[in-house]
Amino acid sequence: MLAAMAYFPDIPTIPFEGPSSKNPLAFKHYNPDELIEGKSMRDHFRFGAAYWHVMRNGLSDPFGGPTAVMPWDDYSDSVDNAKKRADVFFEFLEKIGIDYYCFHDRDIAPELDDFAASTKALEDVVDHLEGLQQSSGRKLLWGTACLFAHPRYSQGAGTSPDARVFAYGAAQVKAAMDATHKLNGEGYTFWGGREGYASLLNTDMKRELDHLAALLHMAVDYKKKIGFEGQFYIEPKPREPSTHQYDSDSAACLNFLREYDLIDHFKLNIETNHATLAGHTMQHELTVAMSAGALGSIDANQGDTLLGWDTDQFPSDLYGTTQVMLKVLEMGGFTTGGLNFDAKRRRESHEPIDLFYAHIGGMDAFARGLKIAAAIRADGRIAEALTNRYKSWDSGIGATIEGGTDLDTLDQWVRQNGEPVINSGRQELLENILNEHF
Amino acid sequence: MLAAMAYFPDIPTIPFEGPSSKNPLAFKHYNPDELIEGKSMRDHFRFGAAYWHVMRNGLSDPFGGPTAVMPWDDYSDSVDNAKKRADVFFEFLEKIGIDYYCFHDRDIAPELDDFAASTKALEDVVDHLEGLQQSSGRKLLWGTACLFAHPRYSQGAGTSPDARVFAYGAAQVKAAMDATHKLNGEGYTFWGGREGYASLLNTDMKRELDHLAALLHMAVDYKKKIGFEGQFYIEPKPREPSTHQYDSDSAACLNFLREYDLIDHFKLNIETNHATLAGHTMQHELTVAMSAGALGSIDANQGDTLLGWDTDQFPSDLYGTTQVMLKVLEMGGFTTGGLNFDAKRRRESHEPIDLFYAHIGGMDAFARGLKIAAAIRADGRIAEALTNRYKSWDSGIGATIEGGTDLDTLDQWVRQNGEPVINSGRQELLENILNEHF
Amino acid sequence: MLAAMAYFPDIPTIPFEGPSSKNPLAFKHYNPDELIEGKSMRDHFRFGAAYWHVMRNGLSDPFGGPTAVMPWDDYSDSVDNAKKRADVFFEFLEKIGIDYYCFHDRDIAPELDDFAASTKALEDVVDHLEGLQQSSGRKLLWGTACLFAHPRYSQGAGTSPDARVFAYGAAQVKAAMDATHKLNGEGYTFWGGREGYASLLNTDMKRELDHLAALLHMAVDYKKKIGFEGQFYIEPKPREPSTHQYDSDSAACLNFLREYDLIDHFKLNIETNHATLAGHTMQHELTVAMSAGALGSIDANQGDTLLGWDTDQFPSDLYGTTQVMLKVLEMGGFTTGGLNFDAKRRRESHEPIDLFYAHIGGMDAFARGLKIAAAIRADGRIAEALTNRYKSWDSGIGATIEGGTDLDTLDQWVRQNGEPVINSGRQELLENILNEHF
Amino acid sequence: MLAAMAYFPDIPTIPFEGPSSKNPLAFKHYNPDELIEGKSMRDHFRFGAAYWHVMRNGLSDPFGGPTAVMPWDDYSDSVDNAKKRADVFFEFLEKIGIDYYCFHDRDIAPELDDFAASTKALEDVVDHLEGLQQSSGRKLLWGTACLFAHPRYSQGAGTSPDARVFAYGAAQVKAAMDATHKLNGEGYTFWGGREGYASLLNTDMKRELDHLAALLHMAVDYKKKIGFEGQFYIEPKPREPSTHQYDSDSAACLNFLREYDLIDHFKLNIETNHATLAGHTMQHELTVAMSAGALGSIDANQGDTLLGWDTDQFPSDLYGTTQVMLKVLEMGGFTTGGLNFDAKRRRESHEPIDLFYAHIGGMDAFARGLKIAAAIRADGRIAEALTNRYKSWDSGIGATIEGGTDLDTLDQWVRQNGEPVINSGRQELLENILNEHF
Repeated sequence: MLAAMAYFPDIPTIPFEGPSSKNPLAFKHYNPDELIEGKSMRDHFRFGAAYWHVMRNGLSDPFGGPTAVMPWDDYSDSVDNAKKRADVFFEFLEKIGIDYYCFHDRDIAPELDDFAASTKALEDVVDHLEGLQQSSGRKLLWGTACLFAHPRYSQGAGTSPDARVFAYGAAQVKAAMDATHKLNGEGYTFWGGREGYASLLNTDMKRELDHLAALLHMAVDYKKKIGFEGQFYIEPKPREPSTHQYDSDSAACLNFLREYDLIDHFKLNIETNHATLAGHTMQHELTVAMSAGALGSIDANQGDTLLGWDTDQFPSDLYGTTQVMLKVLEMGGFTTGGLNFDAKRRRESHEPIDLFYAHIGGMDAFARGLKIAAAIRADGRIAEALTNRYKSWDSGIGATIEGGTDLDTLDQWVRQNGEPVINSGRQELLENILNEHF
Repeated sequence: MLAAMAYFPDIPTIPFEGPSSKNPLAFKHYNPDELIEGKSMRDHFRFGAAYWHVMRNGLSDPFGGPTAVMPWDDYSDSVDNAKKRADVFFEFLEKIGIDYYCFHDRDIAPELDDFAASTKALEDVVDHLEGLQQSSGRKLLWGTACLFAHPRYSQGAGTSPDARVFAYGAAQVKAAMDATHKLNGEGYTFWGGREGYASLLNTDMKRELDHLAALLHMAVDYKKKIGFEGQFYIEPKPREPSTHQYDSDSAACLNFLREYDLIDHFKLNIETNHATLAGHTMQHELTVAMSAGALGSIDANQGDTLLGWDTDQFPSDLYGTTQVMLKVLEMGGFTTGGLNFDAKRRRESHEPIDLFYAHIGGMDAFARGLKIAAAIRADGRIAEALTNRYKSWDSGIGATIEGGTDLDTLDQWVRQNGEPVINSGRQELLENILNEHF
Repeated sequence: MLAAMAYFPDIPTIPFEGPSSKNPLAFKHYNPDELIEGKSMRDHFRFGAAYWHVMRNGLSDPFGGPTAVMPWDDYSDSVDNAKKRADVFFEFLEKIGIDYYCFHDRDIAPELDDFAASTKALEDVVDHLEGLQQSSGRKLLWGTACLFAHPRYSQGAGTSPDARVFAYGAAQVKAAMDATHKLNGEGYTFWGGREGYASLLNTDMKRELDHLAALLHMAVDYKKKIGFEGQFYIEPKPREPSTHQYDSDSAACLNFLREYDLIDHFKLNIETNHATLAGHTMQHELTVAMSAGALGSIDANQGDTLLGWDTDQFPSDLYGTTQVMLKVLEMGGFTTGGLNFDAKRRRESHEPIDLFYAHIGGMDAFARGLKIAAAIRADGRIAEALTNRYKSWDSGIGATIEGGTDLDTLDQWVRQNGEPVINSGRQELLENILNEHF
Repeated sequence: MLAAMAYFPDIPTIPFEGPSSKNPLAFKHYNPDELIEGKSMRDHFRFGAAYWHVMRNGLSDPFGGPTAVMPWDDYSDSVDNAKKRADVFFEFLEKIGIDYYCFHDRDIAPELDDFAASTKALEDVVDHLEGLQQSSGRKLLWGTACLFAHPRYSQGAGTSPDARVFAYGAAQVKAAMDATHKLNGEGYTFWGGREGYASLLNTDMKRELDHLAALLHMAVDYKKKIGFEGQFYIEPKPREPSTHQYDSDSAACLNFLREYDLIDHFKLNIETNHATLAGHTMQHELTVAMSAGALGSIDANQGDTLLGWDTDQFPSDLYGTTQVMLKVLEMGGFTTGGLNFDAKRRRESHEPIDLFYAHIGGMDAFARGLKIAAAIRADGRIAEALTNRYKSWDSGIGATIEGGTDLDTLDQWVRQNGEPVINSGRQELLENILNEHF
């Protein structure tokens, strides 16, 4: 328990009250100690809160200024203000019942006049966070460096056309890795904020990607040097803020990692809204990553597929949470990763209590999704249909092909066996079975 | 010259008349023997016509039947009808002045009652085409197998859940490779027509991709066996006809080729409309492929970015053709590949003469694009701006980074060198210079 | 009960068995006689089946031919074949328990060599359908004319550049109205299949819309003349099959109806997939129509917002069905309209039984949606929040404004009353409450 | 000529040097006094500069802070700073050769602690602008009120759920109209910045639109009262910043204006990027507005159709500028309206000189577009094809229909006249002719 719990005076620690509760400040489904498939909900989810959205997002947008009410913040760049924000954040974590958090270096500490001063401020705040972690038992899911907000990074960091900017970004990565290591972070994420381009007219894509790979290799080396054992993640996202982002989707990330011999050192941190912006479903991106043994962690949110940008809404669609949890259960659960709420309230939801409503909704939506996913697995009909659909591969010509054959053999086989009559894909029936669980 | 030239009786061999001509059946810019950067236009483009669009596309759409007037076609599945179509096609090639063509097996010959009969029909038509090639001097740019139109392939071919369908597809690939080899095709293309899924509820993505890779490895082996020296291409396309196509964009294709150790055997055949459906510009896809040394050939068309499907329009946007030719010139020109018009007339342009208007427009648009691209290169200002933008990498800290360094070194450098002042990206100026050439 | 019930020999009349049933050929939620808000489910929904999807959709797509197994169909253009299809369809209606149906003239009867022959065939089949309606008690929700499939309509019907095509379309409308009237149709729908353009280069938009309005005014006159009392509907849809469809969304339709003084004679038939193709949610389109007193009927389906065309999937998303039913309940229910399943099975679901699975799923999804909508209304919290959000308009300055005032008065009021402190929009909380009902 | 011209010390008044000039600070095509179709370029375009983009856009985006270098600005909210910005702006207008400008109230003057203070500041700056207009001869194309940036408007202004916010917005409209009137503005624009909704769960659409109409009626009354004779414009835009904007496209605006009896008092101000966000081409939106006699003014820019937000790029696509100018010439030119550059430099183009490059590019692109449009009109082939395409309407059955007839008559005509043979739409040929002019 933290010493001071005064920043959200009217808000209690959120209880679990069950589905029939009408209390808006209670969980209806998220019961952290309830066992599902033999593991507690807490351990299934490993929920994380995003420091940037909870503490630093004023809810401005391109057409208007901040609306969020943050009475604890004096809006200065002082280290004291930064530490106070950390206190508020840990009170939030305590009351909402979230065990993990994630940060960018510039969320938790101010960008000051020069690199040395900024780094010193970061170290000071990290010391403070270390104390908060110890007293609260909360843990760091992953840290990262913000290499996109400052004007110096307007043309990229690891892919900047200016080598001095690259160097600055690299130094910032070192400091952010040090901070993450000190706080026992279970991972470190690279999101290529402005690693992309606005126009190919002024861009040498190949040279930029060579540089990005060099940065990641330096980070791999530094990780070994300092003994940091957390997992490295790369996070796919297309077309925002750059016109084209290099890490546009899971396939693009994996291709890059394979090309530059980085595939053994990175897993993916997949976000729902980034998936849909890339024209993919979240299940698709999770499946691509899992097929490559590279699903590491998840940024839990949802987007609006009728809009063309990252709306970062709180996850409320139960189909979405169910599909995520089906994949997580199929994978056998997270190891270093978790479900980080990379989600923000709508700009109109500007009161502090809205932070609680939003996270309660997201956590309950995932709790429902987990229960539904477990029920689908226990039911078994969908899995059985999948097995049956591919059963021609388990023997006969299918087994021959999987065992290795050639075109001549298959030509002969077809000439002898004639036209196959194929079975219905039964998509509608499977959708009906899925719906039975809602 | 072909014996009979009677199918387009009112249409002459299309002449080059220059920009001031008002003759709609003349080229204004495409002058095949004109030299640009020391090479004839003919050799720059290596234009190809698509058998499926010119001869077999009745212009039906999901809301209505065929409109195209094709008086030479009796719409039967006879081999004679197929041969007659080939005659018409070669008259078209002759009159329009296109040197290459591309086909699917089922475009040129009918699908008959069983595999043996279909394959025999294919062989008969291939013999006829061989004669037409010899008498006309026209050549085959690439062949392919249609593994998506027949109902047996409704759930995929190389990725079918049914091993018997896979076998059928493999046998068809063998026959199409044989046909391509016999016709001295300079390439063979794999477009994954239905290699994807409608729903992940009934799909085992990993197993399906393992099978697809097995098919391609068998094709690589068979190529070696028969001594076919043409280039293999894989063609990216997202989200149509399957809800998700595995080969969704260049990055996805390259990732697949790397994962399954096929990267040395395939290049990409990139199509403009497929690029934009995937959310990328054509230049982006070309650049990604070129960066990987994998740009092989181009399907020349354009889409409508306000529509959500492959409209396969004839290329008329001069910005688009210029950008393609800038990349082709940068690459040093095609080797086995070319510019295949994978484009169809609008459904309302149903008269035979519209085939000519459409191809004339596309060829002239590329001729203009080539001239503009060459002028931009001769001018040199855009290239100079690009070189200058990255000049910090050619010495000092940039050279140090490219030579190999570490995070500690860069941390020290930043502490000593302070905040970099970065230069404008000058996108608007470069766009102005680009426009000077139109 | 129909005389012959032999076309779906293995399929029973679908029973209601309740949520715990695992029988795939049973309803889990749709219990036609169950009362919700005092009205039976049957009367709430007024479900309709689409003749074109159930009987005439072979499931071909632009990349491949038909897959649907239809053993009853000899694929001829005979009137006998058409009547047999009608028998099959009514057996389907009987077994699935759907009371209404909808058709295009060319679904139910063949297009023959000339207009007189086609119209005579239509009359013959209508006589047959009349008998089937009488013996089965099934009813016609609405009829329409297919003015988009035949090549003559490739450039439009009511907006064709060719007056002869317009005349043909008008004659077809007359015959389809006669058919609908004879069958006691409760409505008649105008979907502007190809009323739009492919390119503005060859289009006179104003003249085309004048013609379309003339056609609709003639239909209004003819309706009066023959004493047809069904409701006229216009159906919004954007960008398919034309590049631009004039009736692109509800607002465009209403604008057209107002401009041409047709607003009193038409209501809208809104389709979910058309809404999302236009960039709107279905709730948005329903709300726009209801605000104008113009919501008439609904085409029940769903699309894939990551795809760019009308996928016409069966409605399975419970959020979607709930939102539709919230609007229908708010409106006080349908009068002439209903929920017509304008939905098709996936191409891979080619067996007759898939028709049943698909409709069962859609009907159950709407039954769940209705129950959830009714529960949300009974709960009252969302409605209460809405009332509270606007309460400043019910008195004070709000009432003054609604009563009529001027800018000077408001300027003075603001100078005296200072900066308002606004309340949170509470979107996340409301989404949480919504989710409590799933 | 202005007294002080020192803010852009290195930049001359931009000269016209003709197409062969390589001077990046010269016009290649925009020659203000050159006559096209008997009118000077200057009068054809009536170019306007946007105060918000030139003077107040720091080029921040949702992922990073401002980058624009603005050495003249002390970033205070003082009236002196505001006046200094106005001086800089008029130097910009002078050097770039733009005659008109547009502003929001909060661009030109600060938002201060209360409404009275803000309004007083606005009046002071307006006095200063009046002087600048007089000394420079520059004019105000239109003014508007910013009813979207301040947090009070986060939930709308004219459609706010809070009547006090509506009142505040109305008072601000009064002051902005006063300012526009004082500066002899030729128009006044209503862009519904946040007139829309984030969620229908908490929105009463009908009541909100009633309020918006009331605000516009009050503005119409006030216009009459103060004798302001400028044109009122409403500006369509979909889906940003609100999830749904009520004025989503031209049709939605016209429908609203018709429904609320405002159609005689408003014209539309159409923006290219808003058109494409709504899924329409710019030509479509212009044609819809012109067909209703409601095309008033144009916001000149372009978007990126592969991105999902308003990128507000400078117009550089010559096809786009040609199509706009074809419509403007067809309309007979602007009366009160003009071409306002509602466009911003890319965030990476942060130097003051980039403002010049960007506007030079936009002005030259429109000059080229105008010349091409005039050449297309002089050539006459496209217009002739259009006339021919509809010629069946000018006599015979077409004239009968346009004169008024009925379905029975057309039924008889069709029975006597048989199947029409329709002509090709010739889209490809027309596209070729269009391209001849580039």
